[in-house]
Amino acid sequence: MAIKVGVLGAKGRVGSAVVAGVKQADDLELVAEVDQDDSLEALVENGAEVVVDFTTPGAVMGNVEFCIGHGIHCVVGTTGFDDARYDQVREWLEGQEGTGVLIAPNFAISAVLTMAFARQAAPFFESAEVVEYHHPNKLDAPSGTAIKTAQGIAEARRQAGLPTIPDATEQSLEGARGSDVDGVRVHAVRMTGMVAHEEVIFGTRDQSLTLRQDSYGRESFVPGVLAGVRQVAQHPGLTVGLDKYLGI
Amino acid sequence: MAIKVGVLGAKGRVGSAVVAGVKQADDLELVAEVDQDDSLEALVENGAEVVVDFTTPGAVMGNVEFCIGHGIHCVVGTTGFDDARYDQVREWLEGQEGTGVLIAPNFAISAVLTMAFARQAAPFFESAEVVEYHHPNKLDAPSGTAIKTAQGIAEARRQAGLPTIPDATEQSLEGARGSDVDGVRVHAVRMTGMVAHEEVIFGTRDQSLTLRQDSYGRESFVPGVLAGVRQVAQHPGLTVGLDKYLGI
Amino acid sequence: MAIKVGVLGAKGRVGSAVVAGVKQADDLELVAEVDQDDSLEALVENGAEVVVDFTTPGAVMGNVEFCIGHGIHCVVGTTGFDDARYDQVREWLEGQEGTGVLIAPNFAISAVLTMAFARQAAPFFESAEVVEYHHPNKLDAPSGTAIKTAQGIAEARRQAGLPTIPDATEQSLEGARGSDVDGVRVHAVRMTGMVAHEEVIFGTRDQSLTLRQDSYGRESFVPGVLAGVRQVAQHPGLTVGLDKYLGI
Amino acid sequence: MAIKVGVLGAKGRVGSAVVAGVKQADDLELVAEVDQDDSLEALVENGAEVVVDFTTPGAVMGNVEFCIGHGIHCVVGTTGFDDARYDQVREWLEGQEGTGVLIAPNFAISAVLTMAFARQAAPFFESAEVVEYHHPNKLDAPSGTAIKTAQGIAEARRQAGLPTIPDATEQSLEGARGSDVDGVRVHAVRMTGMVAHEEVIFGTRDQSLTLRQDSYGRESFVPGVLAGVRQVAQHPGLTVGLDKYLGI
Repeated sequence: MAIKVGVLGAKGRVGSAVVAGVKQADDLELVAEVDQDDSLEALVENGAEVVVDFTTPGAVMGNVEFCIGHGIHCVVGTTGFDDARYDQVREWLEGQEGTGVLIAPNFAISAVLTMAFARQAAPFFESAEVVEYHHPNKLDAPSGTAIKTAQGIAEARRQAGLPTIPDATEQSLEGARGSDVDGVRVHAVRMTGMVAHEEVIFGTRDQSLTLRQDSYGRESFVPGVLAGVRQVAQHPGLTVGLDKYLGI
Repeated sequence: MAIKVGVLGAKGRVGSAVVAGVKQADDLELVAEVDQDDSLEALVENGAEVVVDFTTPGAVMGNVEFCIGHGIHCVVGTTGFDDARYDQVREWLEGQEGTGVLIAPNFAISAVLTMAFARQAAPFFESAEVVEYHHPNKLDAPSGTAIKTAQGIAEARRQAGLPTIPDATEQSLEGARGSDVDGVRVHAVRMTGMVAHEEVIFGTRDQSLTLRQDSYGRESFVPGVLAGVRQVAQHPGLTVGLDKYLGI
Repeated sequence: MAIKVGVLGAKGRVGSAVVAGVKQADDLELVAEVDQDDSLEALVENGAEVVVDFTTPGAVMGNVEFCIGHGIHCVVGTTGFDDARYDQVREWLEGQEGTGVLIAPNFAISAVLTMAFARQAAPFFESAEVVEYHHPNKLDAPSGTAIKTAQGIAEARRQAGLPTIPDATEQSLEGARGSDVDGVRVHAVRMTGMVAHEEVIFGTRDQSLTLRQDSYGRESFVPGVLAGVRQVAQHPGLTVGLDKYLGI
Repeated sequence: MAIKVGVLGAKGRVGSAVVAGVKQADDLELVAEVDQDDSLEALVENGAEVVVDFTTPGAVMGNVEFCIGHGIHCVVGTTGFDDARYDQVREWLEGQEGTGVLIAPNFAISAVLTMAFARQAAPFFESAEVVEYHHPNKLDAPSGTAIKTAQGIAEARRQAGLPTIPDATEQSLEGARGSDVDGVRVHAVRMTGMVAHEEVIFGTRDQSLTLRQDSYGRESFVPGVLAGVRQVAQHPGLTVGLDKYLGI
């Protein structure tokens, strides 16, 4: 039987892509589309089992409290969460042990897997660097995802007791070796025509391993959101980060 | 304190690279180099704690029995193992519960990780294909590694209940879509100058994930063998495949 | 002074992207948008110097005849041209020596360059193969572009007197080595999320050269059309193929 | 009939690889191997038609003068040439119009083609960046080849009247955007296991073009040297750079 899904922020750019994705999936049934002036009661009236929330930092906490109170599982991509907010969600969940809440900053499943695999691979290689590629209108360099990926690699190397990454560079043009994120070099390429791409390269004796993630369009978050919707009921309590659902 | 290591087949191409690798590692001490006419007693006399075996299918079982009998851990890359041989090794290990034996067909750590990550990623993507690249003197196509990678992907897709990979091709030149390994397409490129390279590509809505492994030289197995040597004491009993040691 | 441009088929998917591209370019001025029920006289009345035609095989010949008759240069991406049509265009041009007509099957400048560079590189490498990647709804495999690329490589190898590409394969799964296009192997990957991508790989002693073209969206023809518009006045007579304009 | 070849510096690392390459080529005949204490007369006595020089800056000028004086064509990979030396060679050649001298800083044909193609492609793309990858023992970053590639792109953009490469970066970690070579960003990756690799990326509307060169071993210069040997007789006078021979 199909899972009954409600979407909050259903008319936003992200929400409307989620609506379309749910409609196309045979195992999911869209029962409620709620936008900013609509009542949350529609979720209850239509029997939503899982709610997807891509709204605003100002609205999301009220939405999550309502859903938990009605035993509806939540998959949340809205930004603005910090430890205080996570604690609040955990508190609301205390009386609702069967209810699951997934809050994730990134639902692009290829990016989430790249980060997870990078942490797993890191202990086995002498060298590791990150190169990210984005369109030239991006304001920050490197991307937040690339920085997080490098931090994960650095942390995994520390735990494995690896030494500093070898680098004999003596003579360098300024910036040639990229930025230094916890000892891992990160390079940012800006290229008209590209969307969002990340390459993580590991090297050791006579070999290298490259993890590459390419986003070709603006709806790369949809498969990850649907994976979250399908699994949230099996993960009661609060989960932060989609990787916890991926069995890796 | 350094782990005391003996190498069997120490004068072979592979064995001599292992010897060099052990010598270079600060945390390992080479205590015995044994080749075909040498006595295995040198292992005991010199206090070997771990033995690496890259010998021949005819010699390896005697070597493993001797080591288990003396409580020496084994890291084995010699080919020719089948279920009967695995059962025999397990039998020998019955009276020696603290001893570990690792038998692995592939110690190239980047290739082993690529296969492991491919299985993990497979459930989350609609499409998956494998492209392998080798020098033009290779006799078989696709490579054994590429076939195993595809089989792992196919198995992971089945377990996750995924449908057939989408492919609307109606008109095709013979061979254009590659070979079919359990429903996963595998392509083999042969290229002067290349060594051994594999690319596993996954795709879903607006994104792709690529795992690429490059072997640039003939000693890419060394880091994996050393990883095995370092961990075999923590894995008593028989372990088949280096991936079991990688914590993934 | 900006070049005055008219667009035929201005309301079609391709034509409207050309319209937008012309509007954005500082050195071009859009003076006429003509669609199927509009009169061609608008081109003359508004002083169009160059016309872009993305219409239909049924309409294009009349359009080109009209433009040549009025001394208007033409950049044509409409399909359906054969030798008889090219001869007809040349005949019309006889009385109009200063007028240029560019007819090209492919305006994606990265694809056009990839094909041109592949022909140039081919004589210097022992091995050459082509791998193309497209979305899984594509009906033919390999793509027409990949076939043309392989034919260009094969022709360049013949002219340079190169022998057959080395390949020792003895044992092969059916299709593993791809399709054979004039002796050059061509592989087709079908991948959800991808758009249109082509990789041409050349190998010789200890090295390889890879030419890769990625189309991320449906408007990759625009820069090539604009390059054609800017240069057509300097190329009187009929030119077939954008590569003739690229100075390569 | 095979071309008769002499090799100067025949016992050096590079020279001995050239010797082996000439021996393997059906259309070339090795007639003299000369090293530092040997007499150049062996070249004349054995009828060398072409001489390959990989010696030292101190020896090369004497060698070239001798060869020109005897009407022997020269293919020179020795370093240390400047404008004064080129002028000297041109002067020696004045009385020997039929003799060809090729002096090239780089004979790795894939690298030479990458540089040449990069200059050709540059005018047609809004964006261009270079990423080079080397083993971690390299002392300089970026590589000389990558810097020259970027300079070639910058020069081609200037000649085509292109504006500055677009880049909206406002907030950046130091070094993230690479080094700035004449307005083209160049990134250097250092990776255990890798040898020498260069990637030149161009982007414009909805597409990118990537030129990638991989050196897998230390003898990637051999095919370029042999190409020079085969063609030097058809290029009388002084030629600087192998690209002049490649017909591109």
